[in-house]
Amino acid sequence: MGGDHGPSVVVPALTRATQRLAGRPVRFLLHGDQARLEAGLKHVAPDVAALCEIRHSDHVIAMDEKPAIALRRGKGSSMWNAIDAVKQGTAHAAVSAGNTGGLMAMSKLLLRMSAPGLDRPAIVASWPTLKGITAVLDVGANVTSDAAQLVEFAIMGEAFHQAVHGSKKPTIGLLNVGSEDVKGHEEVREAQRLIREGGFDFAYHGFVEGDDIAKGTVDVVVTDGFTGNIALKTAEGVARFISTLMKDALTSTPLARMGALMAIGPLKAMRARIDPGAVNGGPLLGLNGIVVKSHGGADAKGFANAIKVAYDLADSDYADRIAANMARLDEAIHHPPALETAPAETVQ
Amino acid sequence: MGGDHGPSVVVPALTRATQRLAGRPVRFLLHGDQARLEAGLKHVAPDVAALCEIRHSDHVIAMDEKPAIALRRGKGSSMWNAIDAVKQGTAHAAVSAGNTGGLMAMSKLLLRMSAPGLDRPAIVASWPTLKGITAVLDVGANVTSDAAQLVEFAIMGEAFHQAVHGSKKPTIGLLNVGSEDVKGHEEVREAQRLIREGGFDFAYHGFVEGDDIAKGTVDVVVTDGFTGNIALKTAEGVARFISTLMKDALTSTPLARMGALMAIGPLKAMRARIDPGAVNGGPLLGLNGIVVKSHGGADAKGFANAIKVAYDLADSDYADRIAANMARLDEAIHHPPALETAPAETVQ
Repeated sequence: MGGDHGPSVVVPALTRATQRLAGRPVRFLLHGDQARLEAGLKHVAPDVAALCEIRHSDHVIAMDEKPAIALRRGKGSSMWNAIDAVKQGTAHAAVSAGNTGGLMAMSKLLLRMSAPGLDRPAIVASWPTLKGITAVLDVGANVTSDAAQLVEFAIMGEAFHQAVHGSKKPTIGLLNVGSEDVKGHEEVREAQRLIREGGFDFAYHGFVEGDDIAKGTVDVVVTDGFTGNIALKTAEGVARFISTLMKDALTSTPLARMGALMAIGPLKAMRARIDPGAVNGGPLLGLNGIVVKSHGGADAKGFANAIKVAYDLADSDYADRIAANMARLDEAIHHPPALETAPAETVQ
Repeated sequence: MGGDHGPSVVVPALTRATQRLAGRPVRFLLHGDQARLEAGLKHVAPDVAALCEIRHSDHVIAMDEKPAIALRRGKGSSMWNAIDAVKQGTAHAAVSAGNTGGLMAMSKLLLRMSAPGLDRPAIVASWPTLKGITAVLDVGANVTSDAAQLVEFAIMGEAFHQAVHGSKKPTIGLLNVGSEDVKGHEEVREAQRLIREGGFDFAYHGFVEGDDIAKGTVDVVVTDGFTGNIALKTAEGVARFISTLMKDALTSTPLARMGALMAIGPLKAMRARIDPGAVNGGPLLGLNGIVVKSHGGADAKGFANAIKVAYDLADSDYADRIAANMARLDEAIHHPPALETAPAETVQ
């Protein structure tokens, strides 16, 4: 029921999602208003409708509801029920385009955090780059992050890239203001030490800088939620700024308009490559269960992509890989390898 | 002598700079190798050459020299002498395309910091936006920043925008992950409180987000050096990524190439608008004196812009305005307005 468009986007997305999952078994539990969902399913091909079961709920969390209110009044809402289905084991994953704060708060309450250092789930963004897709996290949930949290992001981002973007061995970089070991603040330097010495079997690249994100220097860029959120939004702003200038340039004179028409095919292909819908769908990371957040304004194609992300995560060893590496992190922090010391002299 | 091109860019830039300063009185002290500089000046119009005096130095700081080494071996170098001329009062400002770390270290040693909270000079970047130019600082020098330092950046950024970009009353925003008062970490919330309550006579807008930079929501965006450096480099990376895709699109087929040719005028105008050279030249902020850093790779047009920035700063009440607001900040921190309290009851 969530997002800016509700069932009018979510239901058509089911057709697209089943096409994208071609041949892989999938079933859908639709949580929300029975009458509206039934009406929506009438417009869907019978073979897709046959994969769906409706779970009625009267109550919908509004997009502008504060997280604390959403949580207090959340029980029995479509959002609550979707997450609870994951908790109960009746669903492998929940996908929502609804209120982000509410989804985070309910997911944390119902599923609990599996990453001990995190206050709340982390969010990962998938960026189109010159080389493919780079996962950047955290992009907004955790405002300050110590070294151990940064390593948790590395663990979760690596498992995410492997499961969703298909890298066998994703390369990992820590976002910093320079590449030398002495650069940056203490948290990021300590995180590098933990990653290098923690026995994670990572393809760790080292520090990366802001321009390495769009270059695709690494598959996973790790940063705190404050810097990551600002980097993501700054990039969105710059992309929109250049697109606006380009559109203005290509419509400024009759000749330019005609020229743009002649290049329309390649220009559209370029636009598809930086289309946010193509990379829509970011899991809330660090929970005991899979919850994927779709952008509230996503269209059916974008929401279908979020469903595909949820499927890929559920159909991988993502959770096991995270759990194994979290145990290694715990070991690295609480039982660091003993230093070689000379035997103490015996006092006679 | 500095930068990737040395006198072959710096000397021709003098002609462009005098044109841009049309009619305003200017003289140049050129620090460096006398023979090379004299040879360069032969290619310059006599009226421009007449504005120049050469101050010979044998020694040049290399672009890849470490700051500590540059500092130790710096005395008598062209860079050292240029900064020292500001200290001695024989020059109003120094402009250099040389080694950034060396320039910072020498400037700090010779001129001393005027901003008591800063470890080293801050760097401001001028971003082209949908509405004009936004100044963003700090973009790289100070890795961690407490609330008072953020307010120092606001003071210096405001005076910079006023002097160089001509705003009568620049609007100021603090970069954060949301616009509500409760958002972000403690430093940024405390900085907002200090700005609101410090009596600065600022046009303070409030918190801004990453996408507000390119939108031009405010004239001055204030952030710590870590976040600012990452935001700037991320933006540069995204701009290059989109430019590459666009170039590829417009040369991918013969028809697209012909179309691009028809739109060449507007496309070139667009490129000029996002040309980094047009906004080249950032002062090192927080010093007792004006030192402007040009990009090492800047061409003559870009270096001329850096000279124009130095001139505008020297020809304004920039330093006085900063000094007055720094005194207000000191007052706000050390002598906050007394809280209204009930008189203590007398103990009998």
